[in-house]
Amino acid sequence: MILITNDDGITSKGIRVLVEEMCKIGEVAVVAPNSPQSGMGHAITIGEPLRLHKNEVLFDGAEAYECSGTPADCVKISKQVALKDRIPDIVLSGINHGTNSSISVLYSGTMSAAIEASIEGVPAVGLSLCDYSANADFSHVRPWVAKIVRGVLANGLPKHLTLNVNFPKISDEPIKGIKVCRQAHAKWEEEFEERQDPLGKSYYWMSGTFRNFDKGTDNDEWAIENNYVSVVPVQYDLTAYHAISVLEEWGME
Amino acid sequence: MILITNDDGITSKGIRVLVEEMCKIGEVAVVAPNSPQSGMGHAITIGEPLRLHKNEVLFDGAEAYECSGTPADCVKISKQVALKDRIPDIVLSGINHGTNSSISVLYSGTMSAAIEASIEGVPAVGLSLCDYSANADFSHVRPWVAKIVRGVLANGLPKHLTLNVNFPKISDEPIKGIKVCRQAHAKWEEEFEERQDPLGKSYYWMSGTFRNFDKGTDNDEWAIENNYVSVVPVQYDLTAYHAISVLEEWGME
Repeated sequence: MILITNDDGITSKGIRVLVEEMCKIGEVAVVAPNSPQSGMGHAITIGEPLRLHKNEVLFDGAEAYECSGTPADCVKISKQVALKDRIPDIVLSGINHGTNSSISVLYSGTMSAAIEASIEGVPAVGLSLCDYSANADFSHVRPWVAKIVRGVLANGLPKHLTLNVNFPKISDEPIKGIKVCRQAHAKWEEEFEERQDPLGKSYYWMSGTFRNFDKGTDNDEWAIENNYVSVVPVQYDLTAYHAISVLEEWGME
Repeated sequence: MILITNDDGITSKGIRVLVEEMCKIGEVAVVAPNSPQSGMGHAITIGEPLRLHKNEVLFDGAEAYECSGTPADCVKISKQVALKDRIPDIVLSGINHGTNSSISVLYSGTMSAAIEASIEGVPAVGLSLCDYSANADFSHVRPWVAKIVRGVLANGLPKHLTLNVNFPKISDEPIKGIKVCRQAHAKWEEEFEERQDPLGKSYYWMSGTFRNFDKGTDNDEWAIENNYVSVVPVQYDLTAYHAISVLEEWGME
């Protein structure tokens, strides 16, 4: 069984495309947020209850639930409540409207849902299209989604790993292929625009510009810019092993 | 200048203890959430404006701002708006009421705020006490906080790294010392309790039990259980480098 979630919400186009493609491969269940959850990272709901409603009209041929929580909550609640302890063969998250390459993996609810599944030991893939538009054209990615999912089902993933898959926006050129790569060294540089509300009090709109510092050709930003599908294996052990000995030399015992 | 944030909110005891200790070391600025943000992970606010208010009553001797956003938002908005492009020497997040060791690093707003600072290239430390109580006793950790911060200021941190520091709950025995270690292999196992609202509709309370699978003695769970302060160097490059060649062998090009 293929469990599908996302962070754009259960009504988005991207999850619909993913469900359609996966219904060709196997049994599909959907547990996705009932509202947009972009930028939720690995947030979970603490101190508030969750709602989970079965939806019988949104998808043909897939059992579907809408959840009031975050993407990570969706994966957590799916196990016991929606799937009643049936273990999925794979968890897919997406297809996200907008990139989750390089540093965006940290902010992405889409990727955190996939990582949450990998904590449970279930193979998981986060899928994103580098096009933020609600009506983005996903037609060129359909065969690549199927190819990657079939690859994971056939080969298995090393335990507790997730794939971060990003597709280039549709263009005149066909996608060149798949590049397995590393997370690029990049960041978002924020700007805050100050405005006044009708009572004269300030509020701030955050916007960001993407800065890519990476000159390499083995990273996800390079792959996408060169019209490849980027595939980054992602782990949730954040330990910087190379720094342990550096810190030990401080003699802080 | 020392920038302090947290995820329990600007009125919590833990941030107050941290501000008090840091005012002995240098100039302190506080930019922290105006409400509890536990479990927010690396969430950022998208599509909604942020509020930032200067607070002149909460702290003696520290410039303080309360922000309507997430812990990561606080670090982002501090740069341009609160600090007006002054770069902190160090960013501290905490002291959290409750553990952020092992897998909890992913869910922790406290740690994500520190990681956000490390993305900016600023040395950052997340500090947590293994006691969830709002009135937790922080007295035993004060000297250790100062020691670690002075260590970072004196030695510098490798760029783009964060320290995840967890303190054992107070006990009859004094803390034995500091252990530099790796993130333990563990997870939270959730349970959902179904209840009915007054209209007869279901809702769910999520609770979790911590499961430690790690038999090692070089990890943060072991250190805390043995009454050491655990210090894990944390990176935000999530690439599982060891898996790149495994995936390339699939021949998915």
